[in-house]
Amino acid sequence: MAGRVKGNVAFLAAPPNMAHGRRPAFPVSHPARYAVVIAGGSGTRFWPRSRTRAPKQLLALLGARTMLQETVARVSPPIARDHVLVVTGRAQARAVRRQLPWLRERLLVEPEARNTAAAIALAALWVAEHAPGATMAVLPADHAIGDRRRFRRDLAAALALAERTGALVTIGIRPTHAETGYGYIRVGAALPGTRGRAARVAAFIEKPERARAEALLARGNVLWNSGIFAWRAETILDVLRRHLPDVVGPLARARARGLAAVYRRLPSISIDHGALERAERVVVVRASFPWSDVGSWAAVAALRAGANGRNAVRGRVVPIDSRGCLVDSPERLVALVGVENLVVVDTPDAVLVCRRDRAQDVRLVVEQLRRRGMGRYL
Amino acid sequence: MAGRVKGNVAFLAAPPNMAHGRRPAFPVSHPARYAVVIAGGSGTRFWPRSRTRAPKQLLALLGARTMLQETVARVSPPIARDHVLVVTGRAQARAVRRQLPWLRERLLVEPEARNTAAAIALAALWVAEHAPGATMAVLPADHAIGDRRRFRRDLAAALALAERTGALVTIGIRPTHAETGYGYIRVGAALPGTRGRAARVAAFIEKPERARAEALLARGNVLWNSGIFAWRAETILDVLRRHLPDVVGPLARARARGLAAVYRRLPSISIDHGALERAERVVVVRASFPWSDVGSWAAVAALRAGANGRNAVRGRVVPIDSRGCLVDSPERLVALVGVENLVVVDTPDAVLVCRRDRAQDVRLVVEQLRRRGMGRYL
Repeated sequence: MAGRVKGNVAFLAAPPNMAHGRRPAFPVSHPARYAVVIAGGSGTRFWPRSRTRAPKQLLALLGARTMLQETVARVSPPIARDHVLVVTGRAQARAVRRQLPWLRERLLVEPEARNTAAAIALAALWVAEHAPGATMAVLPADHAIGDRRRFRRDLAAALALAERTGALVTIGIRPTHAETGYGYIRVGAALPGTRGRAARVAAFIEKPERARAEALLARGNVLWNSGIFAWRAETILDVLRRHLPDVVGPLARARARGLAAVYRRLPSISIDHGALERAERVVVVRASFPWSDVGSWAAVAALRAGANGRNAVRGRVVPIDSRGCLVDSPERLVALVGVENLVVVDTPDAVLVCRRDRAQDVRLVVEQLRRRGMGRYL
Repeated sequence: MAGRVKGNVAFLAAPPNMAHGRRPAFPVSHPARYAVVIAGGSGTRFWPRSRTRAPKQLLALLGARTMLQETVARVSPPIARDHVLVVTGRAQARAVRRQLPWLRERLLVEPEARNTAAAIALAALWVAEHAPGATMAVLPADHAIGDRRRFRRDLAAALALAERTGALVTIGIRPTHAETGYGYIRVGAALPGTRGRAARVAAFIEKPERARAEALLARGNVLWNSGIFAWRAETILDVLRRHLPDVVGPLARARARGLAAVYRRLPSISIDHGALERAERVVVVRASFPWSDVGSWAAVAALRAGANGRNAVRGRVVPIDSRGCLVDSPERLVALVGVENLVVVDTPDAVLVCRRDRAQDVRLVVEQLRRRGMGRYL
């Protein structure tokens, strides 16, 4: 594939017959590029819409397709659909197959949740076995990304960077406010020949308290850690072997029947802590696309709401003097009288009425339900 | 029945074998006393709980029994159960019979709603025909009354006053705030021998705007018009014949089959406008009992809420940092996060989320539903 070469970095130019956003019938992709979609989360912040069997990534919170389906659609191009893997948990496997019926053997099911280091190791072993030397993009299944064209361009650039340099590549998001819910990346020296679009990672910074978040923003030269990565499968496996022992070895040796026993003993740790913060060559590509991790109903409200306090509605609503509300009620009519900035989510057995700026505390409802032995609502 | 006689007014003393609040097996009542419960309203302020077939008075908003059942239970004593009549509309007749199965022929069904003058005229004709010379108490089916003992005492006093003086007797409530939703009574000269408990009505005052309500309260000597009355059946019929023609005559002449035709042509007017404001001898008894007309969900919230902002709940609720809310959701779990002073009412096809102090505007939801052709929600 033709590309401009500048310095030691190659950027993949879009093939001439690929129009903006359209997927060709037989997608042309680098033969050794894979996408690994991490779809095992079981968060609690989207209750009551999300349940154990149907966590956030399996829901259609923002449109007609589920977040998982959107994530998979988004990566082709630059990655062919038959090079997409999904990693998920046992409770969600059936639903994932229903949503992506063509997946076949490219669905990796974890017997237990052990955070992203184990999930990525499992996927990297699969890629290394099936396509030695291949690169893999790693993507969370539950983010919202605007501007697909720019996303695909940046993803292709990240993959090309990984191929050329062998580094671990992360995609960083320009921060728009002092967010305390994301990890940050301190940006180091720019990589030559990338026109400032890529740089070394100087440090990873934990989710900061508010004061620190504001200081980081003020000082500048930080990016949000998007959780989207690109690397050669063998590279991440090497890094994990060196810095997080007892993960790759046991997984590599396990047969299908032995996976449960291995998982029981695996550490539960993110790829960020387990590998990225310990590795030597980590670089960041600055994202050019709009991004949200859709962390709560408030984020859904912001993404779906119109201007001027218009309510965001899925279902039937009668609003009387009410604004800025998110109503998610496909089956029942919802009437609002004199209220502002509420999230109202209706399901067959439970209704949520939540102040929009308290959406993070929906997890406290889930905690209460567990504590009170009301697991049937989970 | 023994009673103290002072001046020209007799007060009925409680029979010695009637303990506080208990109804004797064979209730002793004045042979010529009836209670007429007006149960025909079809208000819109209790949507979505109230529907056309199940308006407010047929709902159990405050306890296990419906408001109609409470009203009927409340009047015995001093009135025997087989002296209780109920007036209602066609759409509610079946539900009324289900709630009061012993009613038999004492259920009067109006073909159309024509406000209280017509309903009372219909009932008065029935009473005059079945028990000449009898007095009748008139009571709305949808009020909340605390302290049954005091209520029964005041009701008996009002009936006795009507029997002794032939006046139209109304019960007036001591105002506790500048309410704009009730009519007021300006209190005139005290009736001798009643120790200030009864007085002439100087004037009836329309539901005032806020400024006037405050002025009335400040000036004092006003009472709220409770809509509870007592009079001889023949007396109210005389007053209506004189001051509101074309009501009593046509009703008296109508046979069962002719009632619909008569009702079509009746004026729709309250008994207050049609008779009380025009009659010569109208007196008021000061109520000694707590009273609410339960005009909206806000009133239900106030009556059911505990102290210190505790939520009033019917059903299952998970409140996170939420207070002062009314939740009426017998079938579905409701989770509240960070909200205050809301009314949340859940029904199988519709959910209401209403700011507590905007409860009067629930009628605007009903208007919208009608306007948008969504009558199935009514």
